[in-house]
Amino acid sequence: METNLFQKLEQYYDEMVSIRRYLHQHPELSFKEFETAKYIENYYRELGVSVKGNVGGNGVVARIKGAKPGLTVALRADFDALPIQDEKDVPYKSTVPGVMHACGHDGHTATLLVLGKVLHELKDELEGEYVLIHQHAEEYAPGGAISMIEDGCLEGVDVIFGTHLWSSEPLGTIQYRVGPVMAAADRFEITIQGQGGHGAQPHRTRDAIVTASQLVVHLQQIVARRVNPIESGVVTVGSFVAENAFNVIADKAKLAGTVRTFNEAVRDQIEEEIETILKGVCLANKSEYVYDYNRGYPAVVNHEKETEYLVELAKQIPEVLTVEETEPHMGGEDFAYYLQHVRGTFFFTGAKPDGVETAFPHHHPRFDFNEKAMLIAAKTLGSAAIHAHQEEKVEVSN
Amino acid sequence: METNLFQKLEQYYDEMVSIRRYLHQHPELSFKEFETAKYIENYYRELGVSVKGNVGGNGVVARIKGAKPGLTVALRADFDALPIQDEKDVPYKSTVPGVMHACGHDGHTATLLVLGKVLHELKDELEGEYVLIHQHAEEYAPGGAISMIEDGCLEGVDVIFGTHLWSSEPLGTIQYRVGPVMAAADRFEITIQGQGGHGAQPHRTRDAIVTASQLVVHLQQIVARRVNPIESGVVTVGSFVAENAFNVIADKAKLAGTVRTFNEAVRDQIEEEIETILKGVCLANKSEYVYDYNRGYPAVVNHEKETEYLVELAKQIPEVLTVEETEPHMGGEDFAYYLQHVRGTFFFTGAKPDGVETAFPHHHPRFDFNEKAMLIAAKTLGSAAIHAHQEEKVEVSN
Amino acid sequence: METNLFQKLEQYYDEMVSIRRYLHQHPELSFKEFETAKYIENYYRELGVSVKGNVGGNGVVARIKGAKPGLTVALRADFDALPIQDEKDVPYKSTVPGVMHACGHDGHTATLLVLGKVLHELKDELEGEYVLIHQHAEEYAPGGAISMIEDGCLEGVDVIFGTHLWSSEPLGTIQYRVGPVMAAADRFEITIQGQGGHGAQPHRTRDAIVTASQLVVHLQQIVARRVNPIESGVVTVGSFVAENAFNVIADKAKLAGTVRTFNEAVRDQIEEEIETILKGVCLANKSEYVYDYNRGYPAVVNHEKETEYLVELAKQIPEVLTVEETEPHMGGEDFAYYLQHVRGTFFFTGAKPDGVETAFPHHHPRFDFNEKAMLIAAKTLGSAAIHAHQEEKVEVSN
Amino acid sequence: METNLFQKLEQYYDEMVSIRRYLHQHPELSFKEFETAKYIENYYRELGVSVKGNVGGNGVVARIKGAKPGLTVALRADFDALPIQDEKDVPYKSTVPGVMHACGHDGHTATLLVLGKVLHELKDELEGEYVLIHQHAEEYAPGGAISMIEDGCLEGVDVIFGTHLWSSEPLGTIQYRVGPVMAAADRFEITIQGQGGHGAQPHRTRDAIVTASQLVVHLQQIVARRVNPIESGVVTVGSFVAENAFNVIADKAKLAGTVRTFNEAVRDQIEEEIETILKGVCLANKSEYVYDYNRGYPAVVNHEKETEYLVELAKQIPEVLTVEETEPHMGGEDFAYYLQHVRGTFFFTGAKPDGVETAFPHHHPRFDFNEKAMLIAAKTLGSAAIHAHQEEKVEVSN
Repeated sequence: METNLFQKLEQYYDEMVSIRRYLHQHPELSFKEFETAKYIENYYRELGVSVKGNVGGNGVVARIKGAKPGLTVALRADFDALPIQDEKDVPYKSTVPGVMHACGHDGHTATLLVLGKVLHELKDELEGEYVLIHQHAEEYAPGGAISMIEDGCLEGVDVIFGTHLWSSEPLGTIQYRVGPVMAAADRFEITIQGQGGHGAQPHRTRDAIVTASQLVVHLQQIVARRVNPIESGVVTVGSFVAENAFNVIADKAKLAGTVRTFNEAVRDQIEEEIETILKGVCLANKSEYVYDYNRGYPAVVNHEKETEYLVELAKQIPEVLTVEETEPHMGGEDFAYYLQHVRGTFFFTGAKPDGVETAFPHHHPRFDFNEKAMLIAAKTLGSAAIHAHQEEKVEVSN
Repeated sequence: METNLFQKLEQYYDEMVSIRRYLHQHPELSFKEFETAKYIENYYRELGVSVKGNVGGNGVVARIKGAKPGLTVALRADFDALPIQDEKDVPYKSTVPGVMHACGHDGHTATLLVLGKVLHELKDELEGEYVLIHQHAEEYAPGGAISMIEDGCLEGVDVIFGTHLWSSEPLGTIQYRVGPVMAAADRFEITIQGQGGHGAQPHRTRDAIVTASQLVVHLQQIVARRVNPIESGVVTVGSFVAENAFNVIADKAKLAGTVRTFNEAVRDQIEEEIETILKGVCLANKSEYVYDYNRGYPAVVNHEKETEYLVELAKQIPEVLTVEETEPHMGGEDFAYYLQHVRGTFFFTGAKPDGVETAFPHHHPRFDFNEKAMLIAAKTLGSAAIHAHQEEKVEVSN
Repeated sequence: METNLFQKLEQYYDEMVSIRRYLHQHPELSFKEFETAKYIENYYRELGVSVKGNVGGNGVVARIKGAKPGLTVALRADFDALPIQDEKDVPYKSTVPGVMHACGHDGHTATLLVLGKVLHELKDELEGEYVLIHQHAEEYAPGGAISMIEDGCLEGVDVIFGTHLWSSEPLGTIQYRVGPVMAAADRFEITIQGQGGHGAQPHRTRDAIVTASQLVVHLQQIVARRVNPIESGVVTVGSFVAENAFNVIADKAKLAGTVRTFNEAVRDQIEEEIETILKGVCLANKSEYVYDYNRGYPAVVNHEKETEYLVELAKQIPEVLTVEETEPHMGGEDFAYYLQHVRGTFFFTGAKPDGVETAFPHHHPRFDFNEKAMLIAAKTLGSAAIHAHQEEKVEVSN
Repeated sequence: METNLFQKLEQYYDEMVSIRRYLHQHPELSFKEFETAKYIENYYRELGVSVKGNVGGNGVVARIKGAKPGLTVALRADFDALPIQDEKDVPYKSTVPGVMHACGHDGHTATLLVLGKVLHELKDELEGEYVLIHQHAEEYAPGGAISMIEDGCLEGVDVIFGTHLWSSEPLGTIQYRVGPVMAAADRFEITIQGQGGHGAQPHRTRDAIVTASQLVVHLQQIVARRVNPIESGVVTVGSFVAENAFNVIADKAKLAGTVRTFNEAVRDQIEEEIETILKGVCLANKSEYVYDYNRGYPAVVNHEKETEYLVELAKQIPEVLTVEETEPHMGGEDFAYYLQHVRGTFFFTGAKPDGVETAFPHHHPRFDFNEKAMLIAAKTLGSAAIHAHQEEKVEVSN
């Protein structure tokens, strides 16, 4: 079975590349991926695969039923691009000024489309059902996952797998992690409102710069003393603006920052602790504040059994040279939401371009990835999908 | 008149010295000056001067009426000693173990007694009335002044003068200052109550050392930003105790400190600002506090006209070589209370011992003063007293 | 004599007003007061007064010799305007867009010109010599005083007087102060250079916002603990800018602030203490800094005898209703430099417009002053000038 | 084989209990366990087992050779007691005042002795060699492990296992963890030396309380911003002492605290970062410091393969009901040193007394454990020991 799957994927590799390059030339921004969605929908329609568009927005979901009974397995690929000017010098360069597939979602899409075609071709031999989730808007909160789930894309789904092509890791590498693998990434904004005045008369003012500075200093306590040391957390104030003449006392200071966590309880705690400290510091300084805390995606938390299962299968793929645990990434991914509903795992597929020592990072204007990684991703996702029914390993784990 | 006064004082100088030395050998602690009070009372009684003991405690007040009408002038000398072991090697050394006249109050008393004797002898030529206030308990809050005032020692008094023999200044110096000359000296105590725990589990505690440290850092703001920069103020945390094993998190920290001010409004403000900051810091740290603020003596605030009047007279005393403005002293004096009721001034009489470059400071076990300063003090106080009626200068000033 | 002086001033009051209004309509910015300087020079030249232009720049100095010997007394008036749009609705409104006499220097000039005319007319009866210093560029550091002094305007001068019309104080008020009356006003700029990075990776950065916040908090210590509490000082950080995306760690923070002091030693100390703390905080944070400290005008420190002398004379001027001590002002004035060379005093002449409760403050687009104050200023300056020779009071004081 | 091992252990369970109770009645403090060492040595000697005393101090090491070739497996039990007064009311209560087996080392010893007896009896059937390490002085740094290792106790050893009876976990529980399972626990002491003085004269001092408070506040940055958020770390200041009169400025402050880490690089980093901050804060405050950093035991870092191997075997022991991952513990253990030399794992054996909801914690005067846990510990250790040779699993892992 695997043999068939792998051979067919190899056979269609050129198509995968050409789909990817077509999408690369025609990138669309998050929530505006109308043509890409149509492209995906048509692809399946032409194959005769059951497909539904406009799922929770621009999302597209195809469903393929195997001949035999079995679990329902979802595979997810995102398809939005970024507001970045493509600065690469390649034939398949973006044709849209200021928009670029700078994160590899074109590759994710090509991988899943061709894998879908192969699963469709093999469906008489397959058990269970395959749900191919093509998600719009991963790059821009609140993301497309929530609305697609609300619109039913996970209905009947037992387990889900997803991957990210990762340009910093060598081709042939699969990186996994049980538990939190990508952080929750939140944003906060604070305005301290004191009372301004003449720089020579501090006693008639409530100096917003002093108050905000105390706040920044005390926020350090949250991670240092209030969060369980076993847990990870980051509280960063990235922006501090109180711009005035030198001889004036600031009436206002504006701060903005980010919070990163892997654990929802820690996330809740930090949101609250910031306000506790803010409230106390403002009280001590007879000043007012406005505090906005905006939640980004939650942490991607991989399930144990499903991750271990994927690891075992990945090791058996000929092109996979290394299967290794990754440190948690601090970036965000709305794949997180799927894992709040069904079991599964999200892994990284090494995609470093040939012949470079250090690849341009994701979101860089000269970002590119090794297209051969798409074949590896397709084999790994495909293998995970078709074995899910036979292996008792993919059960409720703890 | 002055001539008579000065001559008589010179004539009785030896008696002044012997009274002082007797008192020096028989010091008594604040509020326990029973024998000293009796000694003073007897001295006046034997002269036939009207005297009253037990004024507001151990206080003694003598009253001498001049033959002619005039203002009522009070002169004040304190007579308590300190819990210090006398380490001087002189014949008139303290005979009481652990008790010593280490601040010169023995000299103040001898000065006023002999000046009283002289005023009594000259009374037929004098105008007005003279109230000789011998005050107990200057060294120990709440001091003797308050209760003596409540017991009537200032009744009918128009103006008051007092001096302190000052061992760091050369003989022949009179130091004056209009306005605040000695600070209000208050004491505060703060207990921070957090929640202790194991040093490895900060998240289960509310670390009292961190909270108290933030407090100390933020108290700096009071003088730096909240008090009018034209005003003086000091907020010192002198003691910080949270003693624990190294691997424990402190549940409690105890702070004690002092506040010094010259202006009652600033004093009130600082008392309040400390609590504002304390409250905010504790809120930010979910901790509790106990805050005690104990007022010591208020600032000694000299009146302008009376000070200028004294300066003019001091310049005419032959032994006075220098009359100069002093910087405000940060120490406390309960002479402050008299000046809250009647007009007057408190000045310093240089009393550096002969032949030393630097005298032992007040409250030092080897403290001593130059006895010739008593004669200068007596002449200055006496001159201020007898001229008060003739000079229109001693009027209500602003 | 006074009678003559006062009568003549009253007689020329209308001229004073018309000069002032002419200047008000033709304001010129600091260092660009070419026409105003010419106007002043011509005024004296037409009267036949010895005058010199281009003194240290646009400065103009007239000298009038009395018939009898005596001291040389300088009087100073500044004549530059401000880059402010005149928003008053009066016939004598500024005709120059964006430039305005918003601080009363037009009044100072009119006052001194007419006073000069009167002194010239009375010169046969006068003792000593009168130096009329018309100074350019008071509003903009380094100011005109330094260069005029270097160019000899104080040659032979024994004593100097100056005043500022003050719109917040009622007409008829003269405000004086012995010692520091206007603060030294300095500017500092600090750049903290850390190392930026991703908001989720603080360990790979040196967060400039945290470092700068610690700095702001610790600068509070300077005034609170390092400056003698008897002295005044202000250290204000007025601007704190580190503007970045919320999810970035700041590599740089820029601070700007002001230091106000009355005492040169304290000024030196604060300049140094800022760097001590800055150096320590940067060391603790492995960061770099750039520190610029720019001195503005020094404190205006009035001399005691000259101030007391002026107070006595002011009290004898019929239109002067109140002579009162002022609290030190925290603003700057380059009159400070004259007082570093010769003895003298700088005072405030109340100039609140009739019928208003609160006047528009100096430097406000609708600022105006009561022109009758010019007459009071002229009388006070004139009286101080002509009596200087007779009074022994104006001698070297300490 | 297992069957034999388990049966024999069950058969000798009563002996295990009586040994444990004997030891419990005769506890000895760390580095003074002379009689206990003799007792252990004699036990082996009487069985005819090759044994060596005085290994690196009071340590005792027995060696049993199986009949067949195989790996050399070490098992370790510690045998020192604590300076705690036994407050239990049981027949086997400590007979030594102020000394008590309050951590279960008596149980560890009884477990290993009886397991050693059984291994000796089974030696003809066993492969490889068994090294029974009875370690003195676990409770008191630097501990006995280092010197025993230096004295050769690990010679020829391929793999090591150890366990701790754990009174908070239910009987039948085995807790494991790959990687760091117990923290490195270090101690630091800091003295800040400023310059003291009178509470009213901060400008003449360098206030050690202010400096030390700033330090405490800034140390929060280390864990919050300088350590990789993926890593764990704790920096606690547990003691802050600057005890003075309220009106004095502190010349000195003494801090003591603890650092907890799981990663040696983080440990090194924190030791260094503390000094970086300390140096900067002292520079900013013109003060001196003394900094002592004393390393306690390093983190216990379990090896992956050996831990997984142990987990598999533990699941097969009938009395073991739960095998679960534990969160890392922040306490220290010198078993850490063995794992720096050879591969192996350290696990926890649930030993909650019957019928209690919450057991008295380790080091409590009423601590006790469930003796049946000794049998489970013996079976688990024994099973791990005898299978080590057959399983390829116990190989060099990464």
